[in-house]
Order: sequence, then C-alpha cells, then structure tokens
Amino acid sequence: MASLPVLDPATVAERTGTAYPAPLGEPCRNRGKRALGNELGLTLFGVNLTRIEPGAWSALRHWHTRQDEFVYVLEGELVLVTDAGEQTLRPGMAAGFPAGKADGHHLINRSTRPALYLEVGDRGPDDEVHYPDADLFVSSDFVMRHKSGEPY
Amino acid sequence: MASLPVLDPATVAERTGTAYPAPLGEPCRNRGKRALGNELGLTLFGVNLTRIEPGAWSALRHWHTRQDEFVYVLEGELVLVTDAGEQTLRPGMAAGFPAGKADGHHLINRSTRPALYLEVGDRGPDDEVHYPDADLFVSSDFVMRHKSGEPY
Repeated sequence: MASLPVLDPATVAERTGTAYPAPLGEPCRNRGKRALGNELGLTLFGVNLTRIEPGAWSALRHWHTRQDEFVYVLEGELVLVTDAGEQTLRPGMAAGFPAGKADGHHLINRSTRPALYLEVGDRGPDDEVHYPDADLFVSSDFVMRHKSGEPY
Repeated sequence: MASLPVLDPATVAERTGTAYPAPLGEPCRNRGKRALGNELGLTLFGVNLTRIEPGAWSALRHWHTRQDEFVYVLEGELVLVTDAGEQTLRPGMAAGFPAGKADGHHLINRSTRPALYLEVGDRGPDDEVHYPDADLFVSSDFVMRHKSGEPY
C-alpha cells in the first residue's frame, strides 16, 4: 500500500484476465485492472483504472442488486451496451448504474486502440450480480453459480 | 437525472461557492462542482467533477471519521497538503484518504490555469468531519459546529 496519500497509477501492478468460469470469460481476457483504491488503503468502495484492448469486453453484461457503479472514460472509445442499445463513450464522458436497476451493462472496445477508464463501485453487503446473457449469477456469498443455483 | 446511463458532464450545471460559515469558506469560493453521480441516479457514493481556479482551495483541510475519499486529477496541477507536507498532483495521478485516518487534507491550485479532478466519497452513516486548521467540525447530524460544540 502507498505510504503517502498520493499514487502514480503507473507504479501499480496490472491484474489481467478474469475470474469468470471458462469459457464465459474469454471475451474479457484482454483487459487489465489497476486497483487504485485498494492500493491507497480504501475499503468502502473500489476504484480501478481499467484498460480494454481492441475487441475486448469490460465484463460480461451484468447488473448489481445492491451496489452502485460509475465509469469515466479517460482515453480511447468504448461502446456501452445496455437494454436500451448501444452508446459510444469518448474521453470525458461518464456512465452510472444504480443499484437494483435491472439493466445489464458492459463496455466493448470496437476501436483499433486501447481504451482506458476509471470504474468505481461500492462494497455494500448482500449484493448479487445478474448476467442476462450468460448462464451465470453471483450470489450474495460471492459464489459464481449457474442460473439453476448450482455452483460452478 | 439522465434518462440514459450515459452522461456528458458538460450538460450538468456547475455548483459554485461553499456552504462553510463565512468567512471560513472564502478560499474555496472559486471552485465549481458538477455532481455526476447524483445526476446518474447513484446514491451510495458521490462523484463530483470539480474545477479549482488559480489560487483557490478544494476545501478546508479536513478528514472524515467514517467515509473514504478518492481523487484523480484530469487537467492542470494541484498541490495536496497533509500533515506530511505538500505533494504536487498532475494529470493521471490519484490520492486516497481512508476513513478514520486523522490527517487533514485539501488541494490548492498554485498554478496559473484551472485544474480539474474527479472526487469520490461514500455516504456511509455516522460520519464526522474534522478540520485541524479551523474552528469547525461537522457532527454526524450534518451540523457545522465550533470546536466547542456550539452550532454556527
């Protein structure tokens, strides 16, 4: 953890790959996350500096029952997919996903250059994550399950 | 509130000035905040896009007992003041202030151009705010008080 309150994100190791059950996570393989909030000792919300390579997805399309999410694009171009369709996000644009709004979302890099954005999510209790396009949900005990309830 | 999950911050009205008791807030008068998180319907944490004019302060130097804070500099240059002294933050740099860490912090724009940054803070209950350099604290009932406990 940083000993001073200031952090240069370039000094933080990037975590690549995904924890999704194979092969579901394959489209998210070419993403990298730097956990700035954790590195700064924050515990009540997470802040990641996330890089999405061309063709890659930020996540499987999903929504949270109890946690808010926020994204802010820093570099490149990302396509946001929700039930409303697609919208292109460019640097300086933001998006927000309130807890309990049952509208799955994710970001896809359809451009030819890497994209970089900040993502923020709180860590309130009893959250579940729903994935409308995949046989997956995450229960409030953090277990990845088939829609039947069976753990992966 | 935005009807779609995407927001162009330029469309959000900027709130200027401060709620500090006069004349304490005078150094913070030339700042402006766009409440992106509120505009996007988020309730569990706040995200502001904040502009600090040359010479102005982000806030009185303060720390929170129960809430985490995070900042990420987008444009310009800001000087972070804490008990450890001063550190200059440039675009792409982050800083974090964990709940309960009794080290007052604020940002000062000592440059000749406006600075722009994102600030994130959660909204957990029972938070107090302490101001080491001013006769001020904010009690958990959101009342601004003299250090004696007397409300302003």
